[in-house]
Amino acid sequence: MAVQMELSRVIVAEINDQRAIYLREVNGQRTFLILIGPFEVQIINRRLLEEPPFRPLTHDLLRNVIEALGATPVDVTISDLKDHTYYASLRLKQGDKTINIDCRPSDAIALAVHYTPILPIFVEEHVLDEVS
Amino acid sequence: MAVQMELSRVIVAEINDQRAIYLREVNGQRTFLILIGPFEVQIINRRLLEEPPFRPLTHDLLRNVIEALGATPVDVTISDLKDHTYYASLRLKQGDKTINIDCRPSDAIALAVHYTPILPIFVEEHVLDEVS
Repeated sequence: MAVQMELSRVIVAEINDQRAIYLREVNGQRTFLILIGPFEVQIINRRLLEEPPFRPLTHDLLRNVIEALGATPVDVTISDLKDHTYYASLRLKQGDKTINIDCRPSDAIALAVHYTPILPIFVEEHVLDEVS
Repeated sequence: MAVQMELSRVIVAEINDQRAIYLREVNGQRTFLILIGPFEVQIINRRLLEEPPFRPLTHDLLRNVIEALGATPVDVTISDLKDHTYYASLRLKQGDKTINIDCRPSDAIALAVHYTPILPIFVEEHVLDEVS
């Protein structure tokens, strides 16, 4: 089962060049931390803190492509942890079809924050169990 | 009219943090240089020089979304220059429909190099005229 989380904090620690995102359970106490790259954290932070950019950045383009092709995003899910790598998926609806697309958690969350309201973010229960 | 170009060189000059992409006319002598950001040049270079990544990076995701939504890319065009900013568009086909999506030249070229063969890259004649 997938547990709904929300973006709680974006942490940029200049020491060791580490950047992390904290997710917090919507209906509970659990938290989930995921390390992401400097560029990805910048995209997420910029989108949360600043006005939309003058020209579409890559995740704006992704959002525009989804819309132009007649689809709407449903949610994103951090779905698995294998060999120290987190896996995620983006769920889209196109007409009657539901389409799941494999992606990195950083892209999933970056895309999620490009929508208003932010797309629902889920983490699979077994992934939360593994890291708790 | 749009002039077909090909990616000629990716130039990373460490001085001034400048990065540029050179396009060369396919059936002629003209060249076109465009400055792009460090992250964008890294994406393009990595894709040209290295094996596809283990996990989908953002432009892989964009390519996978286009495919999953039943569309195919046709080409990319650097279409305009306004107030020192270049504009580009990505042309997709979905069934009988042709869809043009506004984007930055760096995303257009980054996406183009994610296909084999590389998507056709065009620059509008009036843009070439303005910079020559």
